[in-house]
Amino acid sequence: MKDNKIDLNEYKVNYPNSEKVYKNVDNLAIPYRAITISDSSGADKQFHVYDTTGPYTDPEYDINLDSGLPKRRNDWLEERNIKFKSDSRFDDNITQLTYAKNGIITKEMEYVAARENSFHPNKKTLITPEFVRSEIESGRAIIPSNVKHPELEPMIVGKKFLTKVNANIGNSPVKSNIEEELDKLLWAVRWGADTVMDLSTGKNIYQTREAIIRNSPVPIGTVPIYEALEKVNGKAEDLSYEIFRDVIISQAEQGVDYFTIHAGLKLSFIPTTTNRLTGIVSRGGSIIAKWCLAHHRENFLYDNFDDLCDIMKKYDVSFSLGDGLRPGSIADANDEAQFLELKTLGELTLKARSKGVQVMIEGPGHVPLNKIRENVTLEEEYCNEAPFYTLGPLVTDIAPGYDHITSAIGAANIGSYGTSLLCYVTPKEHLGLPNKEDVKDGLVAYKIAAHASDISKGHNFAVERDNELSKARFEFRWLDQFNLSLDPYKSKEFHDETLPQESAKSAHFCSMCGPNFCSMKITQDIRDYASKYNISDIKVAVEKGMKEKSEEFAASGNKIYIKK
Amino acid sequence: MKDNKIDLNEYKVNYPNSEKVYKNVDNLAIPYRAITISDSSGADKQFHVYDTTGPYTDPEYDINLDSGLPKRRNDWLEERNIKFKSDSRFDDNITQLTYAKNGIITKEMEYVAARENSFHPNKKTLITPEFVRSEIESGRAIIPSNVKHPELEPMIVGKKFLTKVNANIGNSPVKSNIEEELDKLLWAVRWGADTVMDLSTGKNIYQTREAIIRNSPVPIGTVPIYEALEKVNGKAEDLSYEIFRDVIISQAEQGVDYFTIHAGLKLSFIPTTTNRLTGIVSRGGSIIAKWCLAHHRENFLYDNFDDLCDIMKKYDVSFSLGDGLRPGSIADANDEAQFLELKTLGELTLKARSKGVQVMIEGPGHVPLNKIRENVTLEEEYCNEAPFYTLGPLVTDIAPGYDHITSAIGAANIGSYGTSLLCYVTPKEHLGLPNKEDVKDGLVAYKIAAHASDISKGHNFAVERDNELSKARFEFRWLDQFNLSLDPYKSKEFHDETLPQESAKSAHFCSMCGPNFCSMKITQDIRDYASKYNISDIKVAVEKGMKEKSEEFAASGNKIYIKK
Repeated sequence: MKDNKIDLNEYKVNYPNSEKVYKNVDNLAIPYRAITISDSSGADKQFHVYDTTGPYTDPEYDINLDSGLPKRRNDWLEERNIKFKSDSRFDDNITQLTYAKNGIITKEMEYVAARENSFHPNKKTLITPEFVRSEIESGRAIIPSNVKHPELEPMIVGKKFLTKVNANIGNSPVKSNIEEELDKLLWAVRWGADTVMDLSTGKNIYQTREAIIRNSPVPIGTVPIYEALEKVNGKAEDLSYEIFRDVIISQAEQGVDYFTIHAGLKLSFIPTTTNRLTGIVSRGGSIIAKWCLAHHRENFLYDNFDDLCDIMKKYDVSFSLGDGLRPGSIADANDEAQFLELKTLGELTLKARSKGVQVMIEGPGHVPLNKIRENVTLEEEYCNEAPFYTLGPLVTDIAPGYDHITSAIGAANIGSYGTSLLCYVTPKEHLGLPNKEDVKDGLVAYKIAAHASDISKGHNFAVERDNELSKARFEFRWLDQFNLSLDPYKSKEFHDETLPQESAKSAHFCSMCGPNFCSMKITQDIRDYASKYNISDIKVAVEKGMKEKSEEFAASGNKIYIKK
Repeated sequence: MKDNKIDLNEYKVNYPNSEKVYKNVDNLAIPYRAITISDSSGADKQFHVYDTTGPYTDPEYDINLDSGLPKRRNDWLEERNIKFKSDSRFDDNITQLTYAKNGIITKEMEYVAARENSFHPNKKTLITPEFVRSEIESGRAIIPSNVKHPELEPMIVGKKFLTKVNANIGNSPVKSNIEEELDKLLWAVRWGADTVMDLSTGKNIYQTREAIIRNSPVPIGTVPIYEALEKVNGKAEDLSYEIFRDVIISQAEQGVDYFTIHAGLKLSFIPTTTNRLTGIVSRGGSIIAKWCLAHHRENFLYDNFDDLCDIMKKYDVSFSLGDGLRPGSIADANDEAQFLELKTLGELTLKARSKGVQVMIEGPGHVPLNKIRENVTLEEEYCNEAPFYTLGPLVTDIAPGYDHITSAIGAANIGSYGTSLLCYVTPKEHLGLPNKEDVKDGLVAYKIAAHASDISKGHNFAVERDNELSKARFEFRWLDQFNLSLDPYKSKEFHDETLPQESAKSAHFCSMCGPNFCSMKITQDIRDYASKYNISDIKVAVEKGMKEKSEEFAASGNKIYIKK
């Protein structure tokens, strides 16, 4: 692989006014991005945000895509191996769920506990390692973390934690290039992807995935049936469980953290899709359906589910139980096919958990606003509150080219109801493969959706960032406003389009309204007035009549100024 | 005004495969865009969509921006003048509401009834002129339609009708140019704006507005306090009701269809804003607040509300009662200040209605997802179900540069709860004045939000477009999919990025998955199989075991083909 096709400098540079910092909690170096802003008095202060960019933004780290990221997690794994060497509870079953069930708090649990919480160092700790362990034991949360992926910086998926975002990358038979996919990986984590799925279906599936895992600080998911289908030259009828099994062992060995497996699509459900407007739109689902019909046999993934669990528990690969019958249009939302499969995923969830395998559940798709909540309600009921992982959903079908927006609307809603992981949709959805710009546009839309969900759920850590930014906006700290935003580059660029001069960065107005109409400026006048006399005083004055004070205010003038 | 700065050809050209058509209902020519698509059999058919573009897309019409649009509505107005000449009920009170109260169905009511409904000519009529009249009488809907704006193609704002979208245009002291604003008007209606507000605060406010109204097929709204402030050289303290009154008479004479008037911001509410994170963010609100404090007097718009009504009822200018205390950040949402003002707007609504003046109510702003519904509930309660007209709301503050998305999320939600008119937010919000591209991006995001609301409310007319598009998608009618979408240009451009060849437009796959992985192709195989044996047959077969049929299916092969 030639590194020189990827502009590594692009990834080493941090966001404006930001630096990579690590917080040491029990000797775990938890990564954050520290944004330097001014407080109201003008003094510098740092605001910490959750950081998914991995070592790439660490100035101490020399990027080498051939050797991959440092395998820092190996120390934890070795320590655990030694400690539990002769403990039969962990023979071939070394999952986070199995440890959690046995009351053991792993380093991964400690890490995510600190990571979820401490980016507001002044808050009291709400999320403890023990809380993480209990959430994992209950199945309400998972830490996707294959022991063969030591480059991972662990993260947690669960409704009581920050809402996470997944980015899909991967080549297709029409378009293939390993460097390009690796470039998308680095780009995706830079723009906030919490997990990444490699959905390659083209050439060099194995090599592309190897490059991705070795260089990924975030969990990597795959849909193993794609590689299995390549092995039988694209003929679904030629698939078999044996072929599939070889693929998942090979992928588990590489370090894939979660597998999408469409084990809940049973033969008898297929006829319920024939009256749909858009049939089966999941690629994996349609492959399985075709196999089932061709052989008139039950889905081999359903029939061999126990064996799948036995393989996955050895590596701690998590299930992402696939929704092969998810609706592909508004017309098909929440129908019989969809919910028959969901109920089956619930049965499989209990089976996997009993074997110690972590599980999350995939969800739709295309769903109108009024039918979104039912998806969460039924998922929690059928699947015993396993974390929900949804694709959007898109709330209308009529906007190809803008499906990052149609689906961010659905994602924000389903997230606010308790979905833990939101799979992004890019503007290219339904039309073509996303390029880097699309990956970024999809991610920003989904960071917005996830953040809006967190605010709606009352997550203080999310709310604080809004408040810092709005405070900066109100105080005309333009650069702080840009730097606290999800995309500091674009917000500055947009501002500079009309007011490029440096002095405008401290101007007490912008090009929207100009100085006379600036409501924030006028409000500050009002506030100065208020603080001069204090509020209760004004309240009294307003009630009694405060002619004198108004005269003072009028005398103080209507000065509009630009700070020098 | 020089026409040559605006590319008129851009506006004459219709959307791809589309033509302007008029449907004659009681001699009213109701405009639609007819999109020619294929049905499943390959024969051509037309799909009609609501059309806001005005005469510009009519090939018979020669655009002349100097003389303005044809004044077609004058015939109706004259007819009405003659008919009710000696009817004292309509002395100086010729509003749609006054006619409605007196049981009279106007041409405007007939027009909007037909326009709302008949774009699905095969459906039975749900919306009758009498239904429109009764909704207007109740105050639940308004038809903003100044009698001095005869160029108008009437539209209705109300929760039982299609959700509408407003676009703001207008210059600022920092950036001014009449042609540019006129260009934005034509561009806005081309991209689906149902109403347009001219928020100019810069030079030539009067001339800019005149050019806009004479060339606008949609209702035009303004915030008259902006022009009033210009008259006193930007000094809020120097405002008076007399100055304001002159401005609204002059604007009403020009033909403005609705005025945003911040009459509900009372002096005693101002102290409730002093503890807010972002104070008063409405420009109009902050101007009024400043005036109130400077003079220590009640808001002159509140005190002179009766006189305002008496002026507006002569022209049928509608109130858009402004929310001068709307929250400007998540932190300030749903607070005391906001709801004190909303309650006052409710009092004013009843007063205006009693005088025959049509009213809608403006709403926030910045509101987290979990607090959106309360806004609609209280608005309906306090303001007797007057149509709600909201700016977004933005569901997070942290994404300047993407606030068309943060606010489309809020808009889709608030629309689904019953908001009638969604005021767009462009990507430039908080950062600068929108250019044409921003206007388009804002409008597409809001057409998505409005449409998603309509689907959620179960509006069949909206759902049918989704179904047509999804059917085209499923049948690989790529061009139909593009042409039925909100932005046919972008969807085609995105598709062509990876598969530009003409043959790909009829290919039974796309660049996302390639032929082997195309779930839609596989589903069609399954469906062919199903239809061959019919569904119930398959259900039986599945239950009993259908070995034989599977063998037939396997024998039929796995053909992937490109239609020639």
